[in-house]
Amino acid sequence: MSREPLPPSGDGRLDRQLAFLLELDRLKAVLRETALADGSRPENTAEHSWHVAVLALVLAEHAEADVDVGRVVAMLLLHDVVEVDAGDTFAYDPEAHRDKEEREVAAAERLFGLLPQDQGRELRALWDEFEAGDTVEARFARALDRLHPILLNLASGGVAWRRHGIAAGEVVSYNAGMDRGSARLWGYARRVIEAAVERGHLEP
Amino acid sequence: MSREPLPPSGDGRLDRQLAFLLELDRLKAVLRETALADGSRPENTAEHSWHVAVLALVLAEHAEADVDVGRVVAMLLLHDVVEVDAGDTFAYDPEAHRDKEEREVAAAERLFGLLPQDQGRELRALWDEFEAGDTVEARFARALDRLHPILLNLASGGVAWRRHGIAAGEVVSYNAGMDRGSARLWGYARRVIEAAVERGHLEP
Repeated sequence: MSREPLPPSGDGRLDRQLAFLLELDRLKAVLRETALADGSRPENTAEHSWHVAVLALVLAEHAEADVDVGRVVAMLLLHDVVEVDAGDTFAYDPEAHRDKEEREVAAAERLFGLLPQDQGRELRALWDEFEAGDTVEARFARALDRLHPILLNLASGGVAWRRHGIAAGEVVSYNAGMDRGSARLWGYARRVIEAAVERGHLEP
Repeated sequence: MSREPLPPSGDGRLDRQLAFLLELDRLKAVLRETALADGSRPENTAEHSWHVAVLALVLAEHAEADVDVGRVVAMLLLHDVVEVDAGDTFAYDPEAHRDKEEREVAAAERLFGLLPQDQGRELRALWDEFEAGDTVEARFARALDRLHPILLNLASGGVAWRRHGIAAGEVVSYNAGMDRGSARLWGYARRVIEAAVERGHLEP
């Protein structure tokens, strides 16, 4: 498949920014385990990143603490860019989680390294902040990143959960940290998990 | 294809927010004329919305005036949600543009109407601001929305341009308003258009 180089702009800084932006196009080809709400096909990481950023715009009032929404949105737009190199790691696959961090840090080095140095540092810091989950913004962003596939899984009739034979207890224990970002949304996520069990989409 | 309802949360406001968010999932099924950078398949509107929001984060320094980046990003995340009902309208199809506004305004009424009233008004105002293109943020957002398919079209070898037999002059006149949002990025877009002609992807 062709993928032609952009012409140089005559401005090295802009060229580096464009190289980064074009490289991110590959995120549209990274498939997640979660299906679209109608179950028609797997979601890709670019779509997930858009959707979860919109969740942040709409659900910010439910954050555990006052958050800078713009910062939450920026984090969510970038939180999965490393999957360009590292691929998606399914939440309930402990084997794949073993070297996840190593793979993702190497990807972050390469990708943010495409940018002008100051900007690469700045955006990398946002990615690190999300990964560390220590600020109120990162905690809320992480909670939304967990809520999103739970909603889509229920809507799609539990496509990914059923395929992997996931039990409700696994979903609860994997996602319980959500309450640090939003106790209210975690409360709702538990309700969704209960509904999924009742409907036979999740093992009890 | 199944698409199951979410369980009620016991909080009418949250239920309305979730209904809006789940409805937006349909944007992942709205196909644009533009192909991914590798030409492998058409891009959908959710992917476009993510990518162009990242363009805003990275290219903000090239805006014609100082912009509130968070506002530009929020506008871009939402600018195409109306396509859930109205579908995508190809830039170079004057016939489809005739009733585009009418179709999109009806869609905006319905979609933003799913939200709690205060929030629906607030997000609808962002959508209206983008459409009107009168603020510095809207002008810059609109410039990025134009730049994005130009970059992807070149990268993919002009898939959409060639399919429709588009000429360079059409691309220049359709997109010339970009200079109100960023003269610098419009200058670069012209360079990309020239390169596309040289490479035979656009008719001279």
